[in-house]
Amino acid sequence: MTMIDTPTKRTASEEPATLVRRLAMDGRAAQRALAAMDSAARGTALHHAAARLRGDAESVLAANSLDLEAGRTNGLSDAMLDRLALDPERLEGVANALDRVADLPDPVGEIIDETTRPNGLALSQVRVPIGLIGIVYESRPNVTADAAALCVRAGNAVLLRGGSEAVHSNRAIHASLVAGLSEGGVPEAAVQLLPTQDRAAVGAMLKAAGLIDMIVPRGGRGLVERVQADARVPVLAHLDGVCHTYVHHAADPAMARKLVLNAKLRRTGICGAMETLLIDTRFPEAGGLVAALLDEGCAVRGDPRVQSLDPRVSAAGDADWGTEYLDAIVSAAMVDGLDEALAHIARHSSAHTDVIVTAHEAAAERFLAEVDSAIVMHNASSQFADGGEFGLGAEIGIATGRLHARGPVALKGLTTYKWLVRGTGQARP
Amino acid sequence: MTMIDTPTKRTASEEPATLVRRLAMDGRAAQRALAAMDSAARGTALHHAAARLRGDAESVLAANSLDLEAGRTNGLSDAMLDRLALDPERLEGVANALDRVADLPDPVGEIIDETTRPNGLALSQVRVPIGLIGIVYESRPNVTADAAALCVRAGNAVLLRGGSEAVHSNRAIHASLVAGLSEGGVPEAAVQLLPTQDRAAVGAMLKAAGLIDMIVPRGGRGLVERVQADARVPVLAHLDGVCHTYVHHAADPAMARKLVLNAKLRRTGICGAMETLLIDTRFPEAGGLVAALLDEGCAVRGDPRVQSLDPRVSAAGDADWGTEYLDAIVSAAMVDGLDEALAHIARHSSAHTDVIVTAHEAAAERFLAEVDSAIVMHNASSQFADGGEFGLGAEIGIATGRLHARGPVALKGLTTYKWLVRGTGQARP
Repeated sequence: MTMIDTPTKRTASEEPATLVRRLAMDGRAAQRALAAMDSAARGTALHHAAARLRGDAESVLAANSLDLEAGRTNGLSDAMLDRLALDPERLEGVANALDRVADLPDPVGEIIDETTRPNGLALSQVRVPIGLIGIVYESRPNVTADAAALCVRAGNAVLLRGGSEAVHSNRAIHASLVAGLSEGGVPEAAVQLLPTQDRAAVGAMLKAAGLIDMIVPRGGRGLVERVQADARVPVLAHLDGVCHTYVHHAADPAMARKLVLNAKLRRTGICGAMETLLIDTRFPEAGGLVAALLDEGCAVRGDPRVQSLDPRVSAAGDADWGTEYLDAIVSAAMVDGLDEALAHIARHSSAHTDVIVTAHEAAAERFLAEVDSAIVMHNASSQFADGGEFGLGAEIGIATGRLHARGPVALKGLTTYKWLVRGTGQARP
Repeated sequence: MTMIDTPTKRTASEEPATLVRRLAMDGRAAQRALAAMDSAARGTALHHAAARLRGDAESVLAANSLDLEAGRTNGLSDAMLDRLALDPERLEGVANALDRVADLPDPVGEIIDETTRPNGLALSQVRVPIGLIGIVYESRPNVTADAAALCVRAGNAVLLRGGSEAVHSNRAIHASLVAGLSEGGVPEAAVQLLPTQDRAAVGAMLKAAGLIDMIVPRGGRGLVERVQADARVPVLAHLDGVCHTYVHHAADPAMARKLVLNAKLRRTGICGAMETLLIDTRFPEAGGLVAALLDEGCAVRGDPRVQSLDPRVSAAGDADWGTEYLDAIVSAAMVDGLDEALAHIARHSSAHTDVIVTAHEAAAERFLAEVDSAIVMHNASSQFADGGEFGLGAEIGIATGRLHARGPVALKGLTTYKWLVRGTGQARP
């Protein structure tokens, strides 16, 4: 892979681990200054960054054309070129997102809990920034601005490492961001872009436990898998979104059809898209439901009972039950009641988002209680699995791990807490 | 190292990774049943376990004598033998702790946050158990009961791996616990003790990402360091407690003396004991403070300015500022004001517990805001760093990492959350 270095920032002889250590130490020092700023000042600085990005539109778009040109030369797919491409409208969208994040309520300083002990010690649990966040992402240059803004809003420094194919765009956006944030008093090292595309430097980021506090990978399965496998730093991520919709026997048929079509086909490429449909054997309109998907151009891979519903259904193999298609394909199985649906989901779900459609409240509540996924829904489309739709303002990602934060992760997930103890001279007996 | 197997539970040919996978799958299945029990039933089951342990006192103490005998033969130190030893009073203490945990308020089911979106979707963030917790511990057999009880109270299954020197005690306590919990309807596999002392099995636990959800090491620095270095499963722990007390120039001298003596000497072997004393150069009674420590039998290793206060002070080396003595030894430095104290702590603290003693409110508030440790105290002894003292009822440990939970970790730290979304047929536009 090509190494693209910025000679002013890295000497040719600097080892990846040394480079990452130096950047992390700078980032951590900047984070302390950032945390000492008040919340309004961090918000204002983000507005400056948005304004600066608007002012720099011409140079950012010029940098983006270099990436697009190189991408075409290197034979990137149309889909990848589309993810890479910026235009005035998309860039305005990125600037608007900065403004929105600037205006989000700041969770830092929130008192999560407080109590006074019988001995008079006053305890409080106060929300604080995590520290230095590493973001490892692929071709979308907007992540440079989006992820950095969320980190900064919550008082974190960030070390960004974008994809090689977007290197010029990322550098231009990063330069613009840093210039704007600086106008607002944010130290330059609060938002750093790794100045090399050397893969060993990503490896060094993943190993930098104690220097980087959390890594958020943003991109496809391959990227997330590598990050999860190699990281010694805690990772906030989801690997798959194998989302299920279970149509219970007491589902309203019209609602079931609407939700199934929406969950599968509104956008097939998002992690909240349905990948497996479970139909209760007692649901009276199974055939119509499967036909509706097929009629909309969705391929259905079914178990024998689903295959018997419609000749257009192909046979599902074992691997289908764990596959995230991200395409107009769905696996579908008939299940003999709620217990079998729960067992199928417990076995195959990636713990992202699972849905029951039913008019039967007790069945819905049991499903909500027993499905152990980050998001469990009743009578809604799984495509609502999104920080914006949850009212969080924005999201750094969706997490399917069990610790720290689950589901859509926004500003609160970019914070931790500390305990403050205020005494009047208490010694422990 | 000796391998002690339970042939009924493990065939000689079972590989450590296979064994751990089998136990983890059993534990996860049991956890689902445990989570489906209501909170009162889990509490009652823990009371049964306490009663059973009281009833089994004779056999547990007999098992403990076997361990003590082996320990003496193997030349364990008196301190280690003391940690290992049970007697009727200590065992009653273990049973009482089970009763206390049984009566703790259960955090599972708590609604952390809820909101209704403009489209009518009702969102709630509900506290749920983490899943399967691995506990890796050393010689204290009471951990078998204490840690298991906390996990079960919050709906988690647990896989225990105790030290070889306590193997008979741990098996006896474990058998008693499981018998008592079973009377209360808790599946046997909810609390499992690794049936081998083979170190490779601990290694397999640490690598069991996706099977074990969190590992809590309980023991000395060596154990914690190994677990942190090798684990692929998230670890909740603290490696060191290099706790600082900063005596500000505006500290009340009598209070400073009381808190410093208590923080260092009340018990020297706990992680919340002070290890470094920072004295403001403008504090008028520095000499008296250092003399008080020396007079109480504490060795003081000082920087040149502290050495000049008393001839009994020896010279601190570079390593002293990062050393957790766990003994009647303290490192001590003079600092030129709050900024220098903050810089020293930022550089050397293990982010466990740091304290300022001052009558100056603004200095105290700056210290509380800027020291980035799990616990930051004003005018109190660092020895209060303890879940019981914090009113949490009990603690599984103290965490100095930044994610999920910090400081004393009790039941809430043994839970996570999921998002429940209740709709009425909403599809995403």
